[in-house]
Amino acid sequence: MPKKAESTPQPPVIVLVRPQLGENIGKAARAMLNFGLTELRLVAPRDGWPNPDAGPSAAGADIVIEQAKVFDTTADAVADCAHVYATTVRRRNDTKPVVSPEEAAAEIHSAAGRSALLFGAERSGLDIQDVSLARKILTVPINPEFSSLNLAQAVILCAYEWSKFETLEQPTVTDQLPPAPQEELEGLITHFERLLEPKSYFFPEDRAEATRRTLRNVLTSPGWNALEVRTLRGVLTHLSRGDRQR
Amino acid sequence: MPKKAESTPQPPVIVLVRPQLGENIGKAARAMLNFGLTELRLVAPRDGWPNPDAGPSAAGADIVIEQAKVFDTTADAVADCAHVYATTVRRRNDTKPVVSPEEAAAEIHSAAGRSALLFGAERSGLDIQDVSLARKILTVPINPEFSSLNLAQAVILCAYEWSKFETLEQPTVTDQLPPAPQEELEGLITHFERLLEPKSYFFPEDRAEATRRTLRNVLTSPGWNALEVRTLRGVLTHLSRGDRQR
Repeated sequence: MPKKAESTPQPPVIVLVRPQLGENIGKAARAMLNFGLTELRLVAPRDGWPNPDAGPSAAGADIVIEQAKVFDTTADAVADCAHVYATTVRRRNDTKPVVSPEEAAAEIHSAAGRSALLFGAERSGLDIQDVSLARKILTVPINPEFSSLNLAQAVILCAYEWSKFETLEQPTVTDQLPPAPQEELEGLITHFERLLEPKSYFFPEDRAEATRRTLRNVLTSPGWNALEVRTLRGVLTHLSRGDRQR
Repeated sequence: MPKKAESTPQPPVIVLVRPQLGENIGKAARAMLNFGLTELRLVAPRDGWPNPDAGPSAAGADIVIEQAKVFDTTADAVADCAHVYATTVRRRNDTKPVVSPEEAAAEIHSAAGRSALLFGAERSGLDIQDVSLARKILTVPINPEFSSLNLAQAVILCAYEWSKFETLEQPTVTDQLPPAPQEELEGLITHFERLLEPKSYFFPEDRAEATRRTLRNVLTSPGWNALEVRTLRGVLTHLSRGDRQR
């Protein structure tokens, strides 16, 4: 039983290392919950914890804030984690493997054991000690000429990629109706032709066939559903009437 | 030469519809530039434009702020765009196709013609009129129990997905003509409406708006190219003529 639980992939833990502003912790919590992550760990938050600035910017992600755990060191925060990723925006000259948010998400989903994503302080990022705890570097592939990604945005991109794998199995259910049966489409095309015939639309005679084909293509390509075909039949019926109050 | 330019995929335009806070416009600009997008359009920003609050939160994405263009209506803002996506967080009961940020990014990369992503105001989102301009709905697959995604975060997820494709292979350029620019589509819709008006199609009065929207949706979904739109304009012109030899 415990073995099974342990081998089931679990959502990653988000670890904010020495975060400065409570507001940013709140925003990170909100970003996490947007994509279904709830486990937040804080390493030595500058202004202590709890921080009254975190709640408002969490915008309702209270559960994440309330359950956040505080640790003195990054090593303590990831002690129970099997897979630690150090996120960085810029590429470092590092010997560790570098993965994208997408690759990390795929790994987390196929891995047994807990995963942790480390995010550094707002300005300084992760220091070399923090990075040394990680087996891999997670780098967001960003515009090299403008790479000031804020903390919550880095978190949301990682959470988003994780959630994509989470929902992959779910078939996309669409509300869309299928295209109308061909005979209904034919009815529409015939309706058009019947109205256009007396209006000299298919003249000259030697172009008539090509003109019909063009019209058919224009009406076939949309793949209208039965309701849409019915709407257009109604349009045609109205167009063929005399104006009102004439 | 112009033909080639037209068939090369271009980065999408980000359109913020009736944004409220300058701060959020700045954050959206920053999110865009993080992933290489630079073309921002604003529809009727609540506090006018330029807005002194935008610059600081853009955090250096000045080029995006400075080049932002302002429009009175959403229709004006997307007039030159062939592919318009209306972004929403929650699923709507809508008949338009729904795509994820990833699917939209893939489409934008393989499509010819400009693409626009519409983002609604902070609280209210896009209204039904804005959505009716779009051929597709772009929905971020978010935690259904906590879906308060802020504007800049919605923008960054879309920009991020776009940039992922940008760094993959060179985009495949298709021979297909792109959908007609939005203003040509508007011309077609207006043409239909003008002809239908005197035929009592939009009666009773209290259903008129919904009827117009239905018609607009039926005519928007196909993504007809300029030639197809021209064909249909010709069809309408003929239908409005008297029968020959009468």
